[in-house]
Amino acid sequence: MSVSSPVSLIVLAAGQGSRMNSDLPKVLHPLGAAPLLHHAMQAGRALDPGRVVVVAGHGADAVRAAVLAYDDTAEVVVQAEQLGTAHAVAQAAPLLANTPGDAVVLYGDTPFIRHETLDAMRAARTRHDVVVLGFHATGRYGRLVLVDGMLERIVEYKDATEDERAITLCNSGLVCADAALLFSLVAGVGNNNAAGEYYLTDIVEIARSRGLSAGVVICDEAETLGINTRAELARAEAAFQTRARAEALENGVTLTAPDTVFFALDTFIGRDAVIAPNVVFGPGVTIESGAEIRAFCHLEGCHISRGATVGPFARLRPGAELGEDVHVGNFVEIKNSVLDDGVKVGHLTYLGDATVGENTNIGAGTITCNYDGVNKHRTTIGKNAFIGSDTMLVAPVSVGAGAMTGSGSVITADVPADALAIGRARQVTKPGFATKLRDIYKAARAAKKGQ
Amino acid sequence: MSVSSPVSLIVLAAGQGSRMNSDLPKVLHPLGAAPLLHHAMQAGRALDPGRVVVVAGHGADAVRAAVLAYDDTAEVVVQAEQLGTAHAVAQAAPLLANTPGDAVVLYGDTPFIRHETLDAMRAARTRHDVVVLGFHATGRYGRLVLVDGMLERIVEYKDATEDERAITLCNSGLVCADAALLFSLVAGVGNNNAAGEYYLTDIVEIARSRGLSAGVVICDEAETLGINTRAELARAEAAFQTRARAEALENGVTLTAPDTVFFALDTFIGRDAVIAPNVVFGPGVTIESGAEIRAFCHLEGCHISRGATVGPFARLRPGAELGEDVHVGNFVEIKNSVLDDGVKVGHLTYLGDATVGENTNIGAGTITCNYDGVNKHRTTIGKNAFIGSDTMLVAPVSVGAGAMTGSGSVITADVPADALAIGRARQVTKPGFATKLRDIYKAARAAKKGQ
Amino acid sequence: MSVSSPVSLIVLAAGQGSRMNSDLPKVLHPLGAAPLLHHAMQAGRALDPGRVVVVAGHGADAVRAAVLAYDDTAEVVVQAEQLGTAHAVAQAAPLLANTPGDAVVLYGDTPFIRHETLDAMRAARTRHDVVVLGFHATGRYGRLVLVDGMLERIVEYKDATEDERAITLCNSGLVCADAALLFSLVAGVGNNNAAGEYYLTDIVEIARSRGLSAGVVICDEAETLGINTRAELARAEAAFQTRARAEALENGVTLTAPDTVFFALDTFIGRDAVIAPNVVFGPGVTIESGAEIRAFCHLEGCHISRGATVGPFARLRPGAELGEDVHVGNFVEIKNSVLDDGVKVGHLTYLGDATVGENTNIGAGTITCNYDGVNKHRTTIGKNAFIGSDTMLVAPVSVGAGAMTGSGSVITADVPADALAIGRARQVTKPGFATKLRDIYKAARAAKKGQ
Repeated sequence: MSVSSPVSLIVLAAGQGSRMNSDLPKVLHPLGAAPLLHHAMQAGRALDPGRVVVVAGHGADAVRAAVLAYDDTAEVVVQAEQLGTAHAVAQAAPLLANTPGDAVVLYGDTPFIRHETLDAMRAARTRHDVVVLGFHATGRYGRLVLVDGMLERIVEYKDATEDERAITLCNSGLVCADAALLFSLVAGVGNNNAAGEYYLTDIVEIARSRGLSAGVVICDEAETLGINTRAELARAEAAFQTRARAEALENGVTLTAPDTVFFALDTFIGRDAVIAPNVVFGPGVTIESGAEIRAFCHLEGCHISRGATVGPFARLRPGAELGEDVHVGNFVEIKNSVLDDGVKVGHLTYLGDATVGENTNIGAGTITCNYDGVNKHRTTIGKNAFIGSDTMLVAPVSVGAGAMTGSGSVITADVPADALAIGRARQVTKPGFATKLRDIYKAARAAKKGQ
Repeated sequence: MSVSSPVSLIVLAAGQGSRMNSDLPKVLHPLGAAPLLHHAMQAGRALDPGRVVVVAGHGADAVRAAVLAYDDTAEVVVQAEQLGTAHAVAQAAPLLANTPGDAVVLYGDTPFIRHETLDAMRAARTRHDVVVLGFHATGRYGRLVLVDGMLERIVEYKDATEDERAITLCNSGLVCADAALLFSLVAGVGNNNAAGEYYLTDIVEIARSRGLSAGVVICDEAETLGINTRAELARAEAAFQTRARAEALENGVTLTAPDTVFFALDTFIGRDAVIAPNVVFGPGVTIESGAEIRAFCHLEGCHISRGATVGPFARLRPGAELGEDVHVGNFVEIKNSVLDDGVKVGHLTYLGDATVGENTNIGAGTITCNYDGVNKHRTTIGKNAFIGSDTMLVAPVSVGAGAMTGSGSVITADVPADALAIGRARQVTKPGFATKLRDIYKAARAAKKGQ
Repeated sequence: MSVSSPVSLIVLAAGQGSRMNSDLPKVLHPLGAAPLLHHAMQAGRALDPGRVVVVAGHGADAVRAAVLAYDDTAEVVVQAEQLGTAHAVAQAAPLLANTPGDAVVLYGDTPFIRHETLDAMRAARTRHDVVVLGFHATGRYGRLVLVDGMLERIVEYKDATEDERAITLCNSGLVCADAALLFSLVAGVGNNNAAGEYYLTDIVEIARSRGLSAGVVICDEAETLGINTRAELARAEAAFQTRARAEALENGVTLTAPDTVFFALDTFIGRDAVIAPNVVFGPGVTIESGAEIRAFCHLEGCHISRGATVGPFARLRPGAELGEDVHVGNFVEIKNSVLDDGVKVGHLTYLGDATVGENTNIGAGTITCNYDGVNKHRTTIGKNAFIGSDTMLVAPVSVGAGAMTGSGSVITADVPADALAIGRARQVTKPGFATKLRDIYKAARAAKKGQ
């Protein structure tokens, strides 16, 4: 058996998490703008698993949707009753019992496992039939009882003797074993305990009683941090952000005030990009080297190319793709739109479902009217165009290369290249009328007060 | 006498707070988006007081306004000269001397007293004539000298002997006694001391000399924290926010980054509401369960119903009432407006003094022109309407149910139900004119440079 | 010699800073919204130097530009090869060798030196020929070896004996000496060491061997903090901000949440100004007493007068000058514009290259169309005017005092005082057409789905 042999993942994600005080299943609470569950799946993905089985329970439909959003080849089984971790693992048996290779048991509420740790568990399988992940700590965790370097059994803290409690090697719950063996061991677990639950930890003693070997891989306690309350989730978020910020700095990103930048699990930022204070990344953001994100920006599902500047006060939504040297300024929203190199969108604009050619200038107050109340339509603007301020682009519509629109125009028909389109009334100026109107308004106020 | 007997509050709020380096009276500096003074008044309100008397001095008019804003039944007396705490309490005598029941002396610059602590002081009155609130500490506070469990006197730190300074029970300044007795004791206080001030602390010794009993109730030092400098105020704000964030988490609110959310004294948020990073609550915000506030929002005086989503970059001002499943998006301001269930206001919009019926869609760039320079007017929009982008609604005006407005329209007349209103010029397209205009502009630039 | 004798500065700024992992020269990385280099130059400026010479190397052109932006009388010499600190100082010899008075050697990547410390170094020159700045620490710094209170030599940590490492007096690198002497000493420095570099520290031993005296001035370690990595830069930014926030509080500024306010090196805020959470200051901001900056504002290069209120969600760009009691509200951008006393710009507006007279009201959605794609033009608005919502002001254009514009108007011609200018189409209302349109849209959707 070698580390390159096939491996399956079993991710336990059935619990409600009653201490979260929430209707949302615990594993769907967000961490780094992704469900908790995705973090464990991402750690496991580094093992290049042949199959991924998630055991859902509470909120199974929502959990299934989240699983498939991350990995549409993953499989979900439902544990109808939550009868313990061994029972949860057993739900995966119909899918995996005949799958060759190892199975690794992960937890949907344990997001910080490093993939290097999972690699080490896999490697330890060359020496042991069952591999358990442990960590050194003194809290009320289960203890790993070793004899001559061999794991003999796992004892819950509440059941442990004083001598056992003095052991500092604790149980993380993660296990790696040959899949068929794992299910065979799990089948032997009973529920003759105070809680009436089937505990996965019992498989170690069963394996030893069958003459099999069990070993321990040790990781940092921080990796095994589980989430049980909202306060713990908030602390986990802080830990995630601290790590993400440090990595960005090491990668050569300038973060003026790292503590005010919020990363998502999959944020990617190139070297020498500059991120000002108060920037929030949702999922799916990639930023090339040398781009600049100014203060107070909110970005998700977007790509920003080299030399582009964004913000302050800009919002990029999914599908926003900014070419090189694009500028998106303040109070601008871009959604599902491609902006070619050199496009400028300086102020107070909404571009949705649009394509904009290179070096085109979009005036302040421009809006793509992409929704008619029923359908959405696209706007296409050519290169080197000039869209005047407060232009309404009533989609579907196209503006040709080099064309201009007059400010305040509503554009409902296509504009050919190099043409000027204008749709506005002529200015009429009425001398003295401001004074008259003001007098009328003041009289109205006086009349109202007099009532 | 019982705890349910009547009680009056005397809140001392006359000081300038010279170490604040400010023209604003100290008790009006904000904490949790409310004047410092309101915190003490809120703690006292839990006693259900029959009368509340605030002793103002510096900035008395502004202090009176703040007092009445919180409780319009409260009474304000002015201490023209600040001659000490006993002198301040004496100012309330004309109002309260004949009011039956206890009086509790609170301080406008001591915001963290818990109402449970005040309850304990009231309860202790069954055992003592005078009850003083103390706390354990070692700083330069006045010391409470007890003999056989009975409070004998309060000694200022600077006047204390070495033995007295070794006492760790310190004086908070809060006192509870029968109102008539309190004023009688205060009348006996002299000013024969270095500062020439009348100290409220002297009433203990006077009471004991009359054969009355005095006792101590003990609270945490943190409750007695007074504010004397801006740095202390900033630390108090941080302490207030830390507590408010922890309470929200315990109540089942999701706070992605608690440290970036700023609560007001009266913020209320339901379970499973989600609050993203960088949200600021002004006074008067209530949010129902399951609503979502995205990053970079500023909310005050508003109500947000179940399932509504707000932001990022939204501002809700006083009088904004959002029904269920309403969506308010980016760069949107809502003021004094009611949005029925399912209304969508996605982008770049100002709604002021408006009523919007259910499921109506408000296009980007819509503005209620509610102010004519003199008067404000209302806008009424029915249900299932569609307001096109960049519609100006010149109030007073109404748009009927199911009606539409064309984008770029200025609506000055009422629109009947199911009608289409449109007010815009027809588009004119002039082939080649963009090229010509650009040449003219470039020539102008060349001419300018050539000057 | 006296402290008022002439002094020159030599600022070493040639390094690349390879550990920054950046193409930007290290001394140009920003701290407090200014290049690192400016901080050292600002500390040195307090000495009122006759000449300032910056030794550039990597990115010399960019460094020169940054130097001149701060002080256009400064001189820049280029150190083509980086052969050590003594070699760097020697580059200044052609400029300063004949300049009478002292030279002080500063470092472009050491931003926290206080000017009081530099004063102390100058004062110590009355007692010593060479003055070195030291600090107490135990890290891997060079050590200052004193004998009978006289500095004998500086030894690098890696070359130090165990006894020398036990010395806690460390070398900051800053030196003060008569300029001619300094260059004479530097000329005697060799590069016979492992790195083959010319070390400025060697001048102490050379001076002592010539029978000259050398002394030490001691400062806090924090002042000598150098920047070598992005993580160190982020920590330096945090330290800078902590200091700036504390100073603002001491100066009587209200900071609701100091940790969320970001200052620039030159931010000036008057007493009793109120700064809400999440405010970012770029360079060049001055705020008078009693002004209020609400949450989520981004300000640079602007002046805000007494009583003005800004934000939330406002952006003031260079050249924005707000008079007394001006109000700039949410989603408003002001650039290169003067707003006289009492002007109100409440919502969703862009004012660029404009002048607005006192008490004028700018309606929501107003835009100065200041750019035609080639040239920029100015807008002038008189006092007491009323600009209706969604007015496009196509510059160059002027609106007279007391004039009004109708909402939704495009103003292309000047408006005389007290006139009403209006440029919009009349509203047309088509009964039942909304129903018809919706049916058409729904049919289109059905057709599309049916394809």
